[in-house]
Amino acid sequence: MKKLTILFCIAIIALTSCNQKTETTNNSVSLDPLPSWKNGQTKSEIIQFVNEVTKIDGSNYVQPKERIATFDQDGTLWCEQPVAQLEFVSYQIKRMVNSHPEWKDKQPYKSIIEGDKNYLINDYINNHGKELMKLVVTTHSGMTLDKFNSDVQEFMSSSMHPKYNKKYSETVYQPMIELLQYLQNNDFKTYICSGGGNDFMRVFAEETYGIVPENVIGSFAMNSFEQVGDSWNIVKQHDNLFMNDGITKPAAIEQRIGRIPIFVAGNVRSGGDIGQLTYSQTNTLPNFQLLVNHDDDIREFAYSEKDSASLKAAKNGQWQVVSMKNDWLTVFSFED
Amino acid sequence: MKKLTILFCIAIIALTSCNQKTETTNNSVSLDPLPSWKNGQTKSEIIQFVNEVTKIDGSNYVQPKERIATFDQDGTLWCEQPVAQLEFVSYQIKRMVNSHPEWKDKQPYKSIIEGDKNYLINDYINNHGKELMKLVVTTHSGMTLDKFNSDVQEFMSSSMHPKYNKKYSETVYQPMIELLQYLQNNDFKTYICSGGGNDFMRVFAEETYGIVPENVIGSFAMNSFEQVGDSWNIVKQHDNLFMNDGITKPAAIEQRIGRIPIFVAGNVRSGGDIGQLTYSQTNTLPNFQLLVNHDDDIREFAYSEKDSASLKAAKNGQWQVVSMKNDWLTVFSFED
Repeated sequence: MKKLTILFCIAIIALTSCNQKTETTNNSVSLDPLPSWKNGQTKSEIIQFVNEVTKIDGSNYVQPKERIATFDQDGTLWCEQPVAQLEFVSYQIKRMVNSHPEWKDKQPYKSIIEGDKNYLINDYINNHGKELMKLVVTTHSGMTLDKFNSDVQEFMSSSMHPKYNKKYSETVYQPMIELLQYLQNNDFKTYICSGGGNDFMRVFAEETYGIVPENVIGSFAMNSFEQVGDSWNIVKQHDNLFMNDGITKPAAIEQRIGRIPIFVAGNVRSGGDIGQLTYSQTNTLPNFQLLVNHDDDIREFAYSEKDSASLKAAKNGQWQVVSMKNDWLTVFSFED
Repeated sequence: MKKLTILFCIAIIALTSCNQKTETTNNSVSLDPLPSWKNGQTKSEIIQFVNEVTKIDGSNYVQPKERIATFDQDGTLWCEQPVAQLEFVSYQIKRMVNSHPEWKDKQPYKSIIEGDKNYLINDYINNHGKELMKLVVTTHSGMTLDKFNSDVQEFMSSSMHPKYNKKYSETVYQPMIELLQYLQNNDFKTYICSGGGNDFMRVFAEETYGIVPENVIGSFAMNSFEQVGDSWNIVKQHDNLFMNDGITKPAAIEQRIGRIPIFVAGNVRSGGDIGQLTYSQTNTLPNFQLLVNHDDDIREFAYSEKDSASLKAAKNGQWQVVSMKNDWLTVFSFED
């Protein structure tokens, strides 16, 4: 009887230990993967799509290597009022003025030092933003990549969003963080595809979004590799700057990934994501398009697009439009 | 007694099934991961490096996400005598001449049609290869990506290497295929970083090397996304062509990956890999450099570099130099 008990125990322990993984998997499946999304059509459509493309014997199954998802950043993953990278430009110009006292009397630097916002607004309207581009070049090229990265790190850890008084990395949308994790848990390769700088976004993308540097697709210039004394460094350049916005986003996705995404998320503001959303619909595999609409002036900001091109394209393409006001229970994690 | 036997059986079955995975792992570890490499210093150094960076409690442990390996293609992964992509250029010009009869009297097309190799050799020596670049532009831009891909596919499946009478995809070096697989099995992310075209190499890289499209880093121009009728397509362009060679390879690795490789393999011929090999030595993590020397005129080709810059750099940097003649038991799988 003693032997029987011992063997019984061994059997139970062995079987329990073997079954543990399956049980854990079953438990996690039953949890809501998108708790900050209100139950309704948008949430259901997302979950249905993920279920379909991951169901091995289903007709809409997509192999993991083809599960490419691209997300715009500004206005899709985090707040774009103001655009953090432009705040970084001002921050850097103000820091650099000590070694460039001549800037106090020289545009466009003068406008930043004096806080004259109209100068750059007029430049944007009448001059295609050429003066702003000078500031971008000054703050984004000519230094080693290591120096640039530590400047961005310092900006991110010391600057606060003017409305929320939180670090910019805290102004990420909680429902989109959950969506990224949900896709990652289902073997999607998640990418950022945004107008922000490749190098700028990489400084915080892994910690903030779980998106590794090789999956950050942004505006870029080809940097150089230079020897200074005994030390070799990547040095940031600005020639042939590629602006990753609108119709050029598919080209950047093609250059970087070489596959068409099956899931793309962008937002309403400038039509900047119509390109990548349209591109995903050229995929012969099942595909999904999500367009975030900023209609929540209480919790975030309400703004629309002059010509409504993104919403019109969403209607034509049957893309899923997210109402921040109605589809999201929580916008920011700091609300809780 | 019957109960005892049943429980005993359950225990044995359960425990056996639990242990199966570990046993399989142990078995596979004991197999030689590089059977086409002769036992000796080069092979030992590679295996020692991989063992060290994967040993979790070791002082040289490197996390999987940082295990980035980049490989040159021409002369490192496959034969570069002749360069397959230049053979593709000739192949395409000869196909396209039917719709361009004027080419028969027009250089540089005439030289290809007539098989006059001296014309392009002189152009290369005296004119920085500008005439060759015209041919590259003609055969690599202006068409949809889908059309280009199917042209490359056709070339790869119908053209034979002049020495071996084998398809180009069969002229891959068996020891390097084993090395790629060995690194992949040890959670390295393996990339091609080569002067070949991004789009050209992607057509066959996954099937030939197990390297997915997003891990192919080559020369490129930013393509466009265009609507023709109801159909949207990526169209190949040539403006601001980025030649991924020599000192520019680190810039391409930075743009595409955003991490410094810990393992780089290149070859002696033009100094084209000194850049990426040097770049990996700027990594603060443990790193390894491999330089293939073409010294086997029986099984492959024997050639050297005019100024021996690669071998000198290898000596200075203590890189591992591979003698094809002495370090490789097999060069091509078709030898067996």
